Amino acid sequence: MITPEEAESIIKLSEYVYSHEQISLDASLGRVIAEDIISDRDGPPFDRVAMDGIAVDFDVLYDKSEKNVLDIEDIQYAGERAKTLKNNIGGAIEVMTGACMPIGTNTVIPYEDLSIVSKQVTINTLPLSKGKNVHRQGTDFKNDEVLLKKGTIISSANIGLLASVGKSTVDVKSSPKICLFITGSELVNVNETVQSHQIRASHQYTLGSILRAHALNNFEYKIIQDDENLLRSYIEEALLGEFDILLLTGAVSKGKKDFVPSILESLGVEERFHKIAQRPGKPLYFGVFSNKKNVKNKMVFGLPGNPTSAAVCLRCYVIESILRAQEALYPKQSIRIEGNLYFKRPLTLFNLVSYSENNSAKIIHSSGSGDVISLSKSDGFVELPANINESPSGTYLRFYSWGNKKL
Amino acid sequence: MITPEEAESIIKLSEYVYSHEQISLDASLGRVIAEDIISDRDGPPFDRVAMDGIAVDFDVLYDKSEKNVLDIEDIQYAGERAKTLKNNIGGAIEVMTGACMPIGTNTVIPYEDLSIVSKQVTINTLPLSKGKNVHRQGTDFKNDEVLLKKGTIISSANIGLLASVGKSTVDVKSSPKICLFITGSELVNVNETVQSHQIRASHQYTLGSILRAHALNNFEYKIIQDDENLLRSYIEEALLGEFDILLLTGAVSKGKKDFVPSILESLGVEERFHKIAQRPGKPLYFGVFSNKKNVKNKMVFGLPGNPTSAAVCLRCYVIESILRAQEALYPKQSIRIEGNLYFKRPLTLFNLVSYSENNSAKIIHSSGSGDVISLSKSDGFVELPANINESPSGTYLRFYSWGNKKL
Repeated sequence: MITPEEAESIIKLSEYVYSHEQISLDASLGRVIAEDIISDRDGPPFDRVAMDGIAVDFDVLYDKSEKNVLDIEDIQYAGERAKTLKNNIGGAIEVMTGACMPIGTNTVIPYEDLSIVSKQVTINTLPLSKGKNVHRQGTDFKNDEVLLKKGTIISSANIGLLASVGKSTVDVKSSPKICLFITGSELVNVNETVQSHQIRASHQYTLGSILRAHALNNFEYKIIQDDENLLRSYIEEALLGEFDILLLTGAVSKGKKDFVPSILESLGVEERFHKIAQRPGKPLYFGVFSNKKNVKNKMVFGLPGNPTSAAVCLRCYVIESILRAQEALYPKQSIRIEGNLYFKRPLTLFNLVSYSENNSAKIIHSSGSGDVISLSKSDGFVELPANINESPSGTYLRFYSWGNKKL
Repeated sequence: MITPEEAESIIKLSEYVYSHEQISLDASLGRVIAEDIISDRDGPPFDRVAMDGIAVDFDVLYDKSEKNVLDIEDIQYAGERAKTLKNNIGGAIEVMTGACMPIGTNTVIPYEDLSIVSKQVTINTLPLSKGKNVHRQGTDFKNDEVLLKKGTIISSANIGLLASVGKSTVDVKSSPKICLFITGSELVNVNETVQSHQIRASHQYTLGSILRAHALNNFEYKIIQDDENLLRSYIEEALLGEFDILLLTGAVSKGKKDFVPSILESLGVEERFHKIAQRPGKPLYFGVFSNKKNVKNKMVFGLPGNPTSAAVCLRCYVIESILRAQEALYPKQSIRIEGNLYFKRPLTLFNLVSYSENNSAKIIHSSGSGDVISLSKSDGFVELPANINESPSGTYLRFYSWGNKKL
C-alpha cells in the first residue's frame, strides 16, 4: 500500500492548472482570484475628512496667528469637489466626514473642541499636531499597488477591497464540474419510505456541503443501485460528458458487487492507485481518464462507502487537489490538540476533532468509521503520521477543517 | 457613553424569540434547528456487515465444531432482506459490506482470511472474537434518541445525520429580513465611473458577505445620497414594510448631513443608545420601532460609515443579537493571540486579527479605522476590555470571526 504522501504525489502528476472566468463580484465569495488585483487609484483617493468639524491650515494657525476665533467661509460636504479656503489666517471651512479636505487646509478640529455662534467659530482646544483627523490620500494604498495576490481566496473581509478598486466582475479560477455517484442497493433517498434492511443516503448532503463550503458549487449527484450494467452506463456517460471530476462512493472494495474498479478499467480509466495506508479511508481508488477528444484529463476518485471515510478522503485528496489546480494561496494549518492521541499501527491516522472554546481541537474518540454521531460532532480532523505513535494533549498536528463557519 | 456590555443588555431587552419555518434539507446549511432532532430508528438500523467475507455463528464455530471448511449456502447482498443460515455448524453465508447480517450469524470473517473454491470456503485465520466486522444495530444511536439539540447550527458534518433520520425538510428558526441603507453623497456603485472626489461603495459586499457567512441571506441594500427627504422616504418605507432589521451605514454622527438620528426620531423610532465606549465603532446607534399594527418590534442599527467600524458593529451587536433571537447554541470563542496588544484608553478595543498557521490570532496593527487593507487581511477581531490595558502575546482573548471558511 502507498502512503498518503505518495498518494498526493501521484494525484499531483495528473493535475493541470485550471482556466479562469469572469464572474460578478456578488458571486465571488470563496473563489480563487486568477490575477493580481491592482489599485486603479490611491486609497483614499483624496485627503479625506475623518471627523465632522472645521478644516484649517495648521501651520498658519500656530505660527502666524494667535486667533482662536475664525470666520466660517463655507461648508464642504461629502461628495462635493474640494472647495478652497480663501483666508487661511482668519478663516475656516466646516467639513463633514467623508468629504475632500478643502484646498489650503490640512487639519480638522472636531466639533467637540469648538463653539460655533452663527458664522463664527471659537476654538476651545487646539489640535496637537498637523494633519489631525485627516485620512491622508494614499495612506491605505497607492495607485498601481498589488492589493490582493493572484491565488487569494476571496473572503468577506477582502471582497470590499475589490469593490473599492472597481471590480464589479472578478477574474477567478474556474470551478471544476463535479459528478458524484453514490452506489449501494441498500440506499434510498431521504424523502422515500425506508424499509428495515435499507439505509437513507446521506453522502450527497455531507459531501455536497463540504464541497460548497469550499466554494465548489458546480456539483451534481445520483444514487445508483448495485447493478453492473446500470452503473457502467452512468459512468460511461459521465466520462464522455462535461464533468472534470467523477466521484464515486462505495463499491471499491472486495465485495461481489464492487464493480467500480473493473467498470472503470473496461471504460479506459487508468488506475493510478487503489488503497492507501491510512485509517479511515484505506480503500480509496484514484484513476485518470484521458479522452483523446479532450485535452483535459478527468480525475476519478472512488471514495469508500462509509460517511467519515468518504468525507476524510474528499477533504484530504479531492479538495486539496482542486485548490492546487486553482493555484490557491493558503497555508497548511496546524492546530493544538486537546486530549491524547495514540495509534500504534503503521498507518496514518486521520482523527476527527471539534473546536474547543479556545480554538484548540478536541480529540473525538470514535467507535468506528461508520459512527455518524462522531462525524456529526466534528469540525474537521487532524493527521497523525504513520511513524508517530503518540501525540500528547497540547501538541500541534496538521489540521483539515470541513470548511464550516466558526462563530 | 455606555459600555459594550451595557449595549448588549439594552439590545437584549428588545429581542423576541424568532419564529420557525420548514426548509428543504438542501438549503439548511448554517441554519439554526428549531426542534430537537430525534432518531426514528436505530443507527445502524440492523446488524450491518462491515467487511466483505462470510458470516458465521462464532459460538458454534468455536464450541461445537473444529471444522475450518464450510459450505457456502447463499450470498447476502446490501439492500436485501436478511437471509437465514440453515446449517450453523457446517455452513456460512457470503456477505457484502452494507448488507444485513443473515439470521443465525454474528461474526464476519473477511475475504483476506479465507480461501474459496467453488462453493467451499476454508478459514485460514479464525476471528479473534464474536461480533468482529459487524456494525451492531443501535451502536451509533438508539431509536428515539436526541441526535441534535434544538439550537444547533447545521454544519457540513451533521447535515448527513439529518438525512439519516429522514429529514428531507428541517424545521429551522426564521431568518430576519434585513435591509441595509448605505448613505453618503460621495458613494458610487462599483460599476459606475468614479470621479476624483468620490468613493466606490463597498459596504454591501463586506457586510453582505459577513451576513451570508452566518446564513443570513434574506438581505437587500440600497445606496442613498445625503438628501434628507430622500432618506426619510426610504427609511419610512422600510419601517412600514416587511423588514425585521434596518441597518444604516453613515450619517449617525455630528455632521450637518447626519440626518439619521433625527429622521428616525421623527418617524417614531425610539433611540435606545447612541455611542458606545469602544474603538472602533463608537458612533453606533440603536433604536426600536414598534408599529402598532405589528406585534414584532423592528430593530434599527445605525452603523458607522467606515468599513472596519461597520463590520465590527455588525458582527458584535447585530449578528450576536440575531443568533440569540434564534436561540442558537454556540460557545463564545476565545483565541490565543500572537503579538502584544496595548491600549491605554478607557475604551473597549476591538482589534483585527488574522489566523496564523497554527490557528492562533495574529494581531494586525492598523493605521486607523478607515484602513481597508488591514480589514482585508483579517479573519475577525479580538476584544480587549476597557479595564485591561495590555494583553501579551500568548494570552487568550474573546474572538469574533467574520464567519469565513478556514482551510
